Amino acid sequence: MSLLFACDDVPPAPWIKALQAELPDLDIDVWPDCSDPLAVEAALIWGPHASQMDKFPNLKAILSIGAGVDHILRAPGRPDGVPVVRLVDPGLRQGMIDYVTCHVARHHRDMPAYAEQQHKALWIERRQTLAHERRVGIMGLGSLGKACAEALVGLGFDVIGWSRSRKTIDGVGCFYGEDALHSFLAKTEILVCLLPLTPDTTDIMNHTTLSALPPGATLINVGRGEQLVEADLLALLETGQIAGATLDVFRTEPLPRDHAFWSHPNITVTPHIAAVTLARTAAPVIADTLRRLAKGRKLLNVVDPGRGY
Amino acid sequence: MSLLFACDDVPPAPWIKALQAELPDLDIDVWPDCSDPLAVEAALIWGPHASQMDKFPNLKAILSIGAGVDHILRAPGRPDGVPVVRLVDPGLRQGMIDYVTCHVARHHRDMPAYAEQQHKALWIERRQTLAHERRVGIMGLGSLGKACAEALVGLGFDVIGWSRSRKTIDGVGCFYGEDALHSFLAKTEILVCLLPLTPDTTDIMNHTTLSALPPGATLINVGRGEQLVEADLLALLETGQIAGATLDVFRTEPLPRDHAFWSHPNITVTPHIAAVTLARTAAPVIADTLRRLAKGRKLLNVVDPGRGY
Repeated sequence: MSLLFACDDVPPAPWIKALQAELPDLDIDVWPDCSDPLAVEAALIWGPHASQMDKFPNLKAILSIGAGVDHILRAPGRPDGVPVVRLVDPGLRQGMIDYVTCHVARHHRDMPAYAEQQHKALWIERRQTLAHERRVGIMGLGSLGKACAEALVGLGFDVIGWSRSRKTIDGVGCFYGEDALHSFLAKTEILVCLLPLTPDTTDIMNHTTLSALPPGATLINVGRGEQLVEADLLALLETGQIAGATLDVFRTEPLPRDHAFWSHPNITVTPHIAAVTLARTAAPVIADTLRRLAKGRKLLNVVDPGRGY
Repeated sequence: MSLLFACDDVPPAPWIKALQAELPDLDIDVWPDCSDPLAVEAALIWGPHASQMDKFPNLKAILSIGAGVDHILRAPGRPDGVPVVRLVDPGLRQGMIDYVTCHVARHHRDMPAYAEQQHKALWIERRQTLAHERRVGIMGLGSLGKACAEALVGLGFDVIGWSRSRKTIDGVGCFYGEDALHSFLAKTEILVCLLPLTPDTTDIMNHTTLSALPPGATLINVGRGEQLVEADLLALLETGQIAGATLDVFRTEPLPRDHAFWSHPNITVTPHIAAVTLARTAAPVIADTLRRLAKGRKLLNVVDPGRGY
């Protein structure tokens, strides 16, 4: 079997090494090089490359190298009949837990305000709230959202969640569907967005929804930049309706150097690093998909293109 | 029974309300006022007031309003025969978990470096380490140290601990005694100090011990300021042996406005707020001690003055 590696901004060498450690007979071509297009049965993709997959008539699966598949589904000319597989990887899961618990805890314990006080050498104790007195709301209860919700429950937080379809997670008050979104937001002090990007979730964080949060709420966006209306966030930070935000994803990435987010005192910017796919944890998962493909077995985590995830 | 409330920098009103909600017949005097010194059977203390307890001949217990008791034990003239009780309170426990997981996660996910990058509008991905690849070492495995160790294990970190006497905590590699300190430090990437302040732990974080950590280690001090030799930390930050520190406690508090820590780029300063005693969670615990005292039952969490905790 031959795998095409077509991932923008991802150095291929560690991936070739890690995948061939799992599958010594695997041939790997790195886009745009390909010695034998007819031999390519699977493509590992990050970026708009699904548009060019019609060059590989024997392609049997398109694998995302990240948790999101929006970059694949929206590529014009993507071959319809080829299944798209999202990555469900223990490393992505752990990375997201690490990042989300970090930033929930930072907002929970008022660290941005304490940092500001340090800057002015001010020794002032702020009101302390305990984890069980703090409600965290997670939008998106897929594998990453569920993992983060469970980690936060383990830390003692009061966790609620919202998703398109009904979900059940131990210890988490689950809301679902459009009609329940407002009630969910009205109860959420720290909002974490872990939704997949679909037409329904584009611009989902806007003036109306962010205004439904209690005054002084904070926001952590680890979904996709297109889910947040940036001007609406800036306006609500101005009024204090939103007290602060941690943003890892942006409508344009890298975030342009002159963007207002970089220097905003109440915004923490990170460069799309909440959960980076690591070859050392993802290669075994990708190898499992390739083995299933070779044996004609059922693929796991195949995306429903109509639903978008 | 009459309780003397002698706590520096703690407004008495919420405490009187919370304690009398538990014990409606409790008389409470706020130091230095006291209508009937002979009626005082217990004192709730923060600061050096144990020195003045000889004015209350019927005093049966001295209660600390915080987890530490060093402020009581070192007060000259403290009445020897009166038991000293430390506070073991679910709110202190949760507050410390909230703070320690926040700052471990901040260092683990390189947030100080990302904040520096944000300041310069730099979009640069740094190497990502997963929680199970990160070793956190907790010095001090009392009720707070154990709670934090367990919370970090729950988040997936590789946790080890060190204490004076032998301890066992599920999932935590436990070291004990002077002889094991160096081996413990040599394995620790993020060091958390939760030791009680005693003659043995004074200056325990010094040039020798901090140099035993792997190069680039980080430090979180939520024990006591006197446990850290400040000049040694500054020197080791200079060489890079220590990459960063979060300090909540200091040799002089409030930290003097001209102290080098306030403006150090690799030090996070918070004003002794890691775990603040909250009347809403501590009053039931203190009321339980007072009820035991009234009924002549065994007191819990009595300190061994020789050991210091």
